[in-house]
Amino acid sequence: MTTNSAPTTALTHIAQLVTNDPSLGEGPLGLIQDAAVVIDGDRIAWVGPSGKAPATDNAVDAGGRAVIPGFVDSHSHLVFAGDRTEEFNARMSGRPYSAGGIRTTVAATRAAGDDVLRANVARYLAEGLRQGTTTQETKSGYGLTVEDEARALRIAAEQTDEVTFLGAHIVPPDHADDPAGYVDLVTGPMLDACAPHARWVDVFCEKGAFDGDQARAILTAGAAKGLVPRVHANQLGHGPGVQLAVELGAASADHCTHLTDADVDALAGSETVATLLPGAEFSTRATWPDARRLLDAGATVALSTDCNPGSSFTSSMPFCIALAVRDMGMTPDEAVWSATAGGARALRRTDVGRITPGARADLALLDAPSHVHLAYRPGVPLVSAVWHKGVLV
Amino acid sequence: MTTNSAPTTALTHIAQLVTNDPSLGEGPLGLIQDAAVVIDGDRIAWVGPSGKAPATDNAVDAGGRAVIPGFVDSHSHLVFAGDRTEEFNARMSGRPYSAGGIRTTVAATRAAGDDVLRANVARYLAEGLRQGTTTQETKSGYGLTVEDEARALRIAAEQTDEVTFLGAHIVPPDHADDPAGYVDLVTGPMLDACAPHARWVDVFCEKGAFDGDQARAILTAGAAKGLVPRVHANQLGHGPGVQLAVELGAASADHCTHLTDADVDALAGSETVATLLPGAEFSTRATWPDARRLLDAGATVALSTDCNPGSSFTSSMPFCIALAVRDMGMTPDEAVWSATAGGARALRRTDVGRITPGARADLALLDAPSHVHLAYRPGVPLVSAVWHKGVLV
Repeated sequence: MTTNSAPTTALTHIAQLVTNDPSLGEGPLGLIQDAAVVIDGDRIAWVGPSGKAPATDNAVDAGGRAVIPGFVDSHSHLVFAGDRTEEFNARMSGRPYSAGGIRTTVAATRAAGDDVLRANVARYLAEGLRQGTTTQETKSGYGLTVEDEARALRIAAEQTDEVTFLGAHIVPPDHADDPAGYVDLVTGPMLDACAPHARWVDVFCEKGAFDGDQARAILTAGAAKGLVPRVHANQLGHGPGVQLAVELGAASADHCTHLTDADVDALAGSETVATLLPGAEFSTRATWPDARRLLDAGATVALSTDCNPGSSFTSSMPFCIALAVRDMGMTPDEAVWSATAGGARALRRTDVGRITPGARADLALLDAPSHVHLAYRPGVPLVSAVWHKGVLV
Repeated sequence: MTTNSAPTTALTHIAQLVTNDPSLGEGPLGLIQDAAVVIDGDRIAWVGPSGKAPATDNAVDAGGRAVIPGFVDSHSHLVFAGDRTEEFNARMSGRPYSAGGIRTTVAATRAAGDDVLRANVARYLAEGLRQGTTTQETKSGYGLTVEDEARALRIAAEQTDEVTFLGAHIVPPDHADDPAGYVDLVTGPMLDACAPHARWVDVFCEKGAFDGDQARAILTAGAAKGLVPRVHANQLGHGPGVQLAVELGAASADHCTHLTDADVDALAGSETVATLLPGAEFSTRATWPDARRLLDAGATVALSTDCNPGSSFTSSMPFCIALAVRDMGMTPDEAVWSATAGGARALRRTDVGRITPGARADLALLDAPSHVHLAYRPGVPLVSAVWHKGVLV
């Protein structure tokens, strides 16, 4: 049926297919029962009822099982070194521990060789891929010098297209007495060195990190260099992050745990996605973000892992879906959409997060008859096969 | 080093080994750093520092990774048929649904052929085994006729040694007007037919199921036939279940979500294990059991999945550990102990739940340097290899 030389593969008898295209199937998830998908090279070539699938070179019988788009994890911090197991253990055990937090990881990351960082990124990308994550954003933010931030982004860009410059993660200890000087560094030489390796610019806008004016300066400077803003906003308390994200047309405001009605309205009236990161609330025993409130107001919601060694050391999108359903007021359908199409929206991608002709052939086969099982069977590794860019992983 | 013919295998350079034997290593978990374990046939032959391991036929380098005893999941309901996905979906989405609860599964289980039930048990045992569960208790309770209960236990006993007769799960619809008659059936002909296939007798002692007097009659009758009592106790509200379990010398009181001070004292002063099942609270959005209170009082705590298609459809012991640490006040050490040695205690087993010479060779290799990562990395499938009765799964 195709004229090029790449072999075509059909997945047939899919009990339930999530396309995320309402024009192809039922509801917002575009559900099709007893479906087939044809992969041609790295693209989806055809989607429809199993009985009508065109002939292909290979066929995989997905009988009784569901297929969903590969997860789009739009927020992680994978370029790091060092170990914070004891900090986590002490926090969860109620024992005192003089934790350095992000600073601990900054020191270890600066001290690590390129190969260590490269291997760590590869390890966690592979771990995510096995669990169905086929698009992974990741950030710098543990270097916090011109050289270390540029190095982190270079290493990240070797392995993923979605790379974010987060020189403004915290004010590093070496600039503790001169935060304004650090902002000048981030908006000046650090941005110059980093912009060529990144697509996005991000700021941790929070008490103890960067205030609204500092965040605005950094995001504006980044935008002037062609980077699109995204913001760590309103995680630990109320603050200006969400409003700033909307004002600057950021692709995403991430965390959104503490929101005023005005924040919710601002998100609902904008193209800025609210990216919720339940792994962070889980592992720090914090208040859950209220996804229901955002959805009811009309905001677009994404779910991501926030994978990092301090506050959320999970790479599991299914785990985030289960938490979002249990504790954040999302329905299973909404959570699956947010972990796939929502993440794509947060990365302004139309080629991933959906299973439609022309989209990238990123699919996860579940050992379950329905996508609902990602919430119904929490903790169980249900992703049994993954196709990434058309290749079975 | 051995005289028999079975090949010996050494796991060497284990970054951290949980033995659960304080005489072999540090603390209640008996931790050994840079350890080795020698497997001879289906038994552990030797445990000690990696540098002192005796010569073996095969060696597996566990460099940088942790090894723990296989999980002992002492509470599940795997002999079932039917699908309750839509009931879960409706509950979590706030949509009305005329759910039949346990009755739905009873109807589907009675209607299913032996092969369907047998395949279901095999499927969930295998799923658990891949996640590190090497001892799995399972129950009847979806048959509720003499023939269907006996059939469930026969099928369970083909695949696991730990089989529990739960004819007293609910009063079935066909006895709705005659609960006393149903108790007579359970304690009479049903027990006669079931006792040969089971080790344990269990009752769901709860408002709407069986009251204290009924539970006592059933457990006492079971004990007279050689079955050891265990009790579904105090899950949905306060009640007599825990006190009855202690009074009758039950191996375990399961759920323990709603406890008075007298209940906690009774457990602490007994050999009855408090088995906590956080998957049930997770999937029904219920109040968490307070493990801290039980541990501080001196009670023995086990963790289990409660795997069943209605209230807790998880087979993941690591997920239960993560919840117990996040929401039930357990330290990571305590949660790992409770999911291994605690489960063994709840099943009165000394040959599993520990890695000591003479114990059954049930081990899980983690893709992580420490057992703490089971809580630190929630949702991530960290169990990368499992030995069950000495055989690499």
